[in-house]
Amino acid sequence: MKRFISLILLVMMLAIPLVSFAGDAMPTVAGNAEAIKTVQTNADFLWTLVAAFMVFFMQAGFAMVEAGFTRAKNAVNIIMKNLMDMSLGAIAYWAIGFALMFGVSKTGWFGTTGFFLSDYVADKDPWTLAFWMFQVVFAATAATIVSGAMAERTKFISYLIYSVVISGLIYPIFGSWAWGSLYKGSGWLEGLGFIDFAGSTVVHSVGGWAALAGAIVIGPRIGKYVNGKAKAIPGHSITIGALGVFILWFGWYGFNAGSTTAANTDTALIAVNTTLAACAGAFGAMVISWIKFKKPDATMTLNGTLAGLVGITAGCANVLPGSAILIGLLAGVIVVFAVIFIDQTLKVDDPVGAISVHGVCGAWGTLAAGLFNAGGVTLKIVGVQLLGIGAAFLWVFPTAFVLFKLIDKTIGLRTSPEEELEGLDIGEHGLVAYPDFQVNPEANG
Amino acid sequence: MKRFISLILLVMMLAIPLVSFAGDAMPTVAGNAEAIKTVQTNADFLWTLVAAFMVFFMQAGFAMVEAGFTRAKNAVNIIMKNLMDMSLGAIAYWAIGFALMFGVSKTGWFGTTGFFLSDYVADKDPWTLAFWMFQVVFAATAATIVSGAMAERTKFISYLIYSVVISGLIYPIFGSWAWGSLYKGSGWLEGLGFIDFAGSTVVHSVGGWAALAGAIVIGPRIGKYVNGKAKAIPGHSITIGALGVFILWFGWYGFNAGSTTAANTDTALIAVNTTLAACAGAFGAMVISWIKFKKPDATMTLNGTLAGLVGITAGCANVLPGSAILIGLLAGVIVVFAVIFIDQTLKVDDPVGAISVHGVCGAWGTLAAGLFNAGGVTLKIVGVQLLGIGAAFLWVFPTAFVLFKLIDKTIGLRTSPEEELEGLDIGEHGLVAYPDFQVNPEANG
Amino acid sequence: MKRFISLILLVMMLAIPLVSFAGDAMPTVAGNAEAIKTVQTNADFLWTLVAAFMVFFMQAGFAMVEAGFTRAKNAVNIIMKNLMDMSLGAIAYWAIGFALMFGVSKTGWFGTTGFFLSDYVADKDPWTLAFWMFQVVFAATAATIVSGAMAERTKFISYLIYSVVISGLIYPIFGSWAWGSLYKGSGWLEGLGFIDFAGSTVVHSVGGWAALAGAIVIGPRIGKYVNGKAKAIPGHSITIGALGVFILWFGWYGFNAGSTTAANTDTALIAVNTTLAACAGAFGAMVISWIKFKKPDATMTLNGTLAGLVGITAGCANVLPGSAILIGLLAGVIVVFAVIFIDQTLKVDDPVGAISVHGVCGAWGTLAAGLFNAGGVTLKIVGVQLLGIGAAFLWVFPTAFVLFKLIDKTIGLRTSPEEELEGLDIGEHGLVAYPDFQVNPEANG
Repeated sequence: MKRFISLILLVMMLAIPLVSFAGDAMPTVAGNAEAIKTVQTNADFLWTLVAAFMVFFMQAGFAMVEAGFTRAKNAVNIIMKNLMDMSLGAIAYWAIGFALMFGVSKTGWFGTTGFFLSDYVADKDPWTLAFWMFQVVFAATAATIVSGAMAERTKFISYLIYSVVISGLIYPIFGSWAWGSLYKGSGWLEGLGFIDFAGSTVVHSVGGWAALAGAIVIGPRIGKYVNGKAKAIPGHSITIGALGVFILWFGWYGFNAGSTTAANTDTALIAVNTTLAACAGAFGAMVISWIKFKKPDATMTLNGTLAGLVGITAGCANVLPGSAILIGLLAGVIVVFAVIFIDQTLKVDDPVGAISVHGVCGAWGTLAAGLFNAGGVTLKIVGVQLLGIGAAFLWVFPTAFVLFKLIDKTIGLRTSPEEELEGLDIGEHGLVAYPDFQVNPEANG
Repeated sequence: MKRFISLILLVMMLAIPLVSFAGDAMPTVAGNAEAIKTVQTNADFLWTLVAAFMVFFMQAGFAMVEAGFTRAKNAVNIIMKNLMDMSLGAIAYWAIGFALMFGVSKTGWFGTTGFFLSDYVADKDPWTLAFWMFQVVFAATAATIVSGAMAERTKFISYLIYSVVISGLIYPIFGSWAWGSLYKGSGWLEGLGFIDFAGSTVVHSVGGWAALAGAIVIGPRIGKYVNGKAKAIPGHSITIGALGVFILWFGWYGFNAGSTTAANTDTALIAVNTTLAACAGAFGAMVISWIKFKKPDATMTLNGTLAGLVGITAGCANVLPGSAILIGLLAGVIVVFAVIFIDQTLKVDDPVGAISVHGVCGAWGTLAAGLFNAGGVTLKIVGVQLLGIGAAFLWVFPTAFVLFKLIDKTIGLRTSPEEELEGLDIGEHGLVAYPDFQVNPEANG
Repeated sequence: MKRFISLILLVMMLAIPLVSFAGDAMPTVAGNAEAIKTVQTNADFLWTLVAAFMVFFMQAGFAMVEAGFTRAKNAVNIIMKNLMDMSLGAIAYWAIGFALMFGVSKTGWFGTTGFFLSDYVADKDPWTLAFWMFQVVFAATAATIVSGAMAERTKFISYLIYSVVISGLIYPIFGSWAWGSLYKGSGWLEGLGFIDFAGSTVVHSVGGWAALAGAIVIGPRIGKYVNGKAKAIPGHSITIGALGVFILWFGWYGFNAGSTTAANTDTALIAVNTTLAACAGAFGAMVISWIKFKKPDATMTLNGTLAGLVGITAGCANVLPGSAILIGLLAGVIVVFAVIFIDQTLKVDDPVGAISVHGVCGAWGTLAAGLFNAGGVTLKIVGVQLLGIGAAFLWVFPTAFVLFKLIDKTIGLRTSPEEELEGLDIGEHGLVAYPDFQVNPEANG
């Protein structure tokens, strides 16, 4: 009897592993563990892709902000630029950019593998594609920022060229320094502990400093500075511009919370911080503009919203909600002073305030991610943040400056004064944006 | 031999729990069960956040609807109001509203814990943040509704004040009665069995009755009633207004289906009901407007869409698709009569029809959630629904009325007639929305 | 002692299955396996619904593209048509279309069960609803395509009738041939191995060929052909049109990647292919328009983007990223020549280029899905793709032609010349879209 019982037990024990190969009908512990990993992976793909789609939609936001905040006679040109920096930028990022940013890197300065998505072609790992999808929309964002600062006077063909260089070269190289290890690479800056979760510096400051170089090289629009005084050139549709800001804010949730590239519970803090910083940024800019101009200024308030969003982008995952409010509020304050300083003191003509919003507030946000770090702040942390901010400027501004100068000396960066006065839509594209409406000749002058 | 076998078996049995602590390499049943919960939690966060982002995007929809359906000379003001009710409202909801609505409640009338997201600061439970993220965009919706009804004549500073009070106080207190138990609180109304899944009453009627109070206190726009007859004042861009309606419809899927705050299969019925009710609402309003005005009216049809959406919001999870069509259809019919009644009989000037769409159809939807309950309808269910509808009116209308009167008697609620005629954009913000276009002086009068 | 040990072991073994019924406290292998399936199902619902919401949002995109690319005097009419083809189309698809497309089919030519969502009413399987939700927004897309080609001259009541017939009958019957087996049906075309993952033919060509029939029957707009020469009639807002294209692109990620109707890792390839094809389509159309018209044309480039998207829709899941670029690029080239050919050679007036974008590039995409099949291409594959392309044309064009002729001979398809000249907004809806702006009488003639 004992022998019999023992035998049955033995058979049962031995049967367990056998059963585990019997397929769906008889689940096993090991099989379940695999299945759980698969489901989590599916959720990670889902989150990363949905977030990427939302970040893609920011292209619509940028197009509307830039079109709305500039004149009707240049709307077609703005639209074309925004459409093409995504289109050409994505192809450049597919061919070169992704490899430079995330390929295997021996030096920590740039990657050297994975051109033309060859990683995927070789190993068919779908994560390569999901990750690329999320990254390509970031690259497009960096390029688009420049468009705003150089609006209403840049030759279309020249725009195409520099936007490809930014998406394919300037942005990815800096990106590899800070984010390379997220895929197959590594970067010297992240090695030091640099905090830039979703890209206050990597995306926004990079775009902003390239915008600064471009705006300096191309010079101000005709009529912007009269007797050394800056003249406001209002945009042709605050409604469309505001729609763009709301779209950007919506997409920014994908930008920040999607930067986990994994479906987990960290996303909640990021979403809350993003919300509060945007709100506080709008409030900060409104109050300062109210004090300075006696009335709450709409374009400043809208830019304050974006400033708050740029400001929280670096630290969205490592600061507390109360800190997010403070970071956003200060970003909203800073952006008003930065716009005035760049416009009136530096006399750099940036039609939509891109340099202030993305460059300056990107730097502020990167510093703030260190200063308000929930895990505590040390001199080293702040030092590395400052180093990263400086490195971005020192890499981007000179290279972009040289790039714009090169274009200017060869095919030319700027349209003719006649074309600029008439509007780039006719000169560059042979079309007007609003043929059914009577144009106000004074405002449009 | 027997002893040996028994010993081996014993060791194997004892080994199982030991192995379960050996980490990833050797999965266990208990470990798998934990991991499954984690993955489901991750999916719940993902769904709740994506839905919250979609509801946030409704702010763009409200801004476009309100701007499109009012005059060009007030577009900047509309935009600023919509931007700031979200911005200030979210900060008020972070500081006070969330605690009143969902904090621990001994009485069932309001919560008293969790101010300034202190719950999260204390226990670091990320669900607090995900849940707050979903709720804050609801609070902002309630505040925004009022903006439409008081458009084109409200002082900006006064708007800021009452919008903070609504997001931080009036809305959350009613919300705690109906939804308090969703987090740490409890509410007397939900205790009775009140059905309002996504907020026909909690969000829309609350916004609608505050809008009614505001529109009464501030009075009609100059030129609205001539010799006692209501004059139509058409909006400046049906295209932009329609875009807003489409954005709202899109966001409403997050509003209704996201109200599960869990990734489960209940969401499918909610999404289908939401779709069918919106469609039927558009159809109902179009047919009625066709009969009454001899032509299918665009603004009525667009409002019919929103009416259908408001109408299904309470019952989206507990009625069948066929019922959703009926609920939406009737909402579309009701909204046309409500708009005419409020505009021409009550002589309350509501530029965008917000009181009819949100207040009246919110009440209808709440009643309908009882009448069409798939689990059967009793007198008690209908009675509680009516009680909830009544309680919302009795709480919101008087408090909002007092609030608006107080503002009116102190800092003033309404802009000067000169400013109103010229447009609030210049008076309140020193900017026009469309400087490049020639304005039609007649239409804009 | 031995007996004792054996007994303990026996009890432990027997206890395992007992414990598995003890509920949450003691998880089992089988229970875990069930729970894993539940979580994956929840993720599948989540993905399918989010994708459906994004596809719904494409309705806003179509409305903006069509409104922006036509004249201001017809904007209200365009909006109403787009709103109502979704609204009536969804109700028709609920009543009839879904049953014809996915119901049990004995013949492979159409389904015969599931009218009025009776499947769900009977068995309460929520997947029926999630799947319906995803499919209904596809049906609405097919109907909307026709709207663009017949814009600015179609009677509103006639539009309502044919849009119901397309959503409820013409589209679902073809759909059942290619996709019937996705739910309870089957189709003769899919039985042969036809590849049309997300609907280059099923949705876009079907819409495009119906649009062709409609544009032929209704004839060109007044002033379109002067002395046999095609005259360009520019749209009233390139900004709004471009916004529509960006919205469509965004929604297309739901359209293509959502067509897995499951949360899995295949979605990544689909998203990447969708991105690259859209980018290459924009680039291709821009280059060709630049060569042909000496300037990069904005409407052609925007249509090139859509062409790339339509082109990749069939093959998005079975071609490599490099192929996606080629498919999109050629779609962008094809669309320019197709627009010119249809406009100038065939003299069919299609105000927004819908026939070229959806019909022609849909056919191209379907062929390309065979030619670039990553698993290899055979004569049989290409043959079946051509058969499917031909079948779509032979089913849709004649039935739609007869439908339009029938409407024309009975209630009339076209508005009066006076109404067309004045604009359909006044004639059909008694409203103008932009009353506050001065209209340009020349452009609007």
